[in-house]
Amino acid sequence: MDKKKIVLTGDRPTGPLHLGHYVGSLINRVHLQDTAQQFIMIADAQALTDNADNPEKIKQNIIEVALDYLSVGIDPNKSVIFIQSMVPQLFELTMYYLNLVSWNRLKHNPTVKAEITQRGFGETVPAGFMIYPISQAADITAFKADIVPVGEDQLPMLEQTSEIVRKFNRTYQCDVLVEPKVMASKLMRLPGTDGKAKMSKSLNNAIFLSEPFESLSKKVKRMYTDPNHLKVEDPGKVEGNPVFTYLDAFATDKEKLEEMKAHYQRGGLGDSVVKKYLLEVLEDFIAPIRTERARYAQDKEYVYRILKEHSEKAAAIAQQTLDEVKRAMGIDYFLEKVNI
Amino acid sequence: MDKKKIVLTGDRPTGPLHLGHYVGSLINRVHLQDTAQQFIMIADAQALTDNADNPEKIKQNIIEVALDYLSVGIDPNKSVIFIQSMVPQLFELTMYYLNLVSWNRLKHNPTVKAEITQRGFGETVPAGFMIYPISQAADITAFKADIVPVGEDQLPMLEQTSEIVRKFNRTYQCDVLVEPKVMASKLMRLPGTDGKAKMSKSLNNAIFLSEPFESLSKKVKRMYTDPNHLKVEDPGKVEGNPVFTYLDAFATDKEKLEEMKAHYQRGGLGDSVVKKYLLEVLEDFIAPIRTERARYAQDKEYVYRILKEHSEKAAAIAQQTLDEVKRAMGIDYFLEKVNI
Repeated sequence: MDKKKIVLTGDRPTGPLHLGHYVGSLINRVHLQDTAQQFIMIADAQALTDNADNPEKIKQNIIEVALDYLSVGIDPNKSVIFIQSMVPQLFELTMYYLNLVSWNRLKHNPTVKAEITQRGFGETVPAGFMIYPISQAADITAFKADIVPVGEDQLPMLEQTSEIVRKFNRTYQCDVLVEPKVMASKLMRLPGTDGKAKMSKSLNNAIFLSEPFESLSKKVKRMYTDPNHLKVEDPGKVEGNPVFTYLDAFATDKEKLEEMKAHYQRGGLGDSVVKKYLLEVLEDFIAPIRTERARYAQDKEYVYRILKEHSEKAAAIAQQTLDEVKRAMGIDYFLEKVNI
Repeated sequence: MDKKKIVLTGDRPTGPLHLGHYVGSLINRVHLQDTAQQFIMIADAQALTDNADNPEKIKQNIIEVALDYLSVGIDPNKSVIFIQSMVPQLFELTMYYLNLVSWNRLKHNPTVKAEITQRGFGETVPAGFMIYPISQAADITAFKADIVPVGEDQLPMLEQTSEIVRKFNRTYQCDVLVEPKVMASKLMRLPGTDGKAKMSKSLNNAIFLSEPFESLSKKVKRMYTDPNHLKVEDPGKVEGNPVFTYLDAFATDKEKLEEMKAHYQRGGLGDSVVKKYLLEVLEDFIAPIRTERARYAQDKEYVYRILKEHSEKAAAIAQQTLDEVKRAMGIDYFLEKVNI
């Protein structure tokens, strides 16, 4: 039988997770955990690279993200959910990999360049942020991940990891590191409630997995639709209309949805009716998650124990890889020479 | 009574140590170890930043450097002699400090810029090399060193460490990190045998502490003197004449040396006579070191044990600092929440 594939995924704990995370990634993880060995990293150290002045925010969101994971069905008996900073081997690997990457290569990473612009950093960008692609290579290779499910904007990051893997194995004439494959994603990207391409807490256009009904209702009511659909009797556009995009993602009654789309397109269906339906659909989706979340939130000790035990498990695996890396480099001093 | 000062010093293990190291640093350490708590780091990880393709060289030179230390009188009962890569806490500290330094600041470090030019790196400089000032800040602060004895060319490195200390303590409102002071050095810099400003293995102008008599003799014979001192009867220059600079550093009979200088300056003293005296002086200095070195080299197990035990001791101290650092940042998760 084939060896189980190893998957690494994760999130920066900078806020609670939202519907965009679910559609673009979490649902995939819930499925993957049955067939693959899945490591899910709460990337606190990576989040600190551009939040060094606010570690409290990162700390508080670790538990939020963990609650989101558990409440959408990520099963701690199947997936390893760990905290990045509790696996210090990752820092050590990063430092060795940094010697294999030129300064020039680092500063031309397209993903990082785009993110610097987006965050308005310029030259004041923290050095830690600039090198996070190398830290990501450490995360991926520490677990010998075969598969890394990422969006298209993250492909240059994967390419950087692959370059390091190839250079390491070639330089130290070994096959210790494993080149990850991108998982061809059939997943969609959910637009923001304002119709912008990306749902994001910082853009204030996100619906959270932990959204209470009241604010969910408000957010749905304020959603962008077809800007040219001014009167009920006007024909409306379905494509690029975020309300329908959300319905595509979450409505289970596909027949009803198709009827609504046709009605909307020929005119006579008001936005408020469609939004009312979307609110029902989203509430049906979120309600059980909310219940699960409340249940776990009442037993935070359990959640902390999971995180702690899983981080220890992740550290033990990363230590094995680190030992192999140091052996390949020939810097595993004294292992044979002196008995402990 | 005053608390003992804490000193951090060290060397990259890229070759055996030479007379320049002795005069510029080792002699100082031999004295310091009686009054200060001295940590001496064999900086293998730092050496790897520009030797990633040749870790074997670094590995082999660790023992050479350790033998040099012991044979000049660094006492393992007084000084802690440790290997950088065996203190992984240093990598972790480095990663957190990198978030406190801007990319712009990093690339304008004068010492690093000079070293890049010297090594002919340009844009191909390894990223690990570019960030080594931050790794050095981790080395210094991990041991809460008060005093770092460095040459003038290293002052920008110390300034970078101080900046990180101030920024860390300010950002996390604590006084965990200690700002190091430069030790005002009364030590001299020994020129190379070719008269160049710096003695260095890579410039092939070095006399090693482990130099055998035969090659010592050859090196002294080939030394540069006053280029205008062509005939024995010519007056010769003493200033800037490396043979006399070496005699200044190592001759114990100062009266005889002054007489020779006077004779050389008025003419009538040949280079070969001065060199013969220098050879005697250097052999008197090196012979006991050579004997000690041979003795330790016969018991490498003992040297390895020192390095291993001292590295463990250093790691324990660095772990304390790391714990304090993480507590100050508020990322010491679970320490109170879950019992182990």
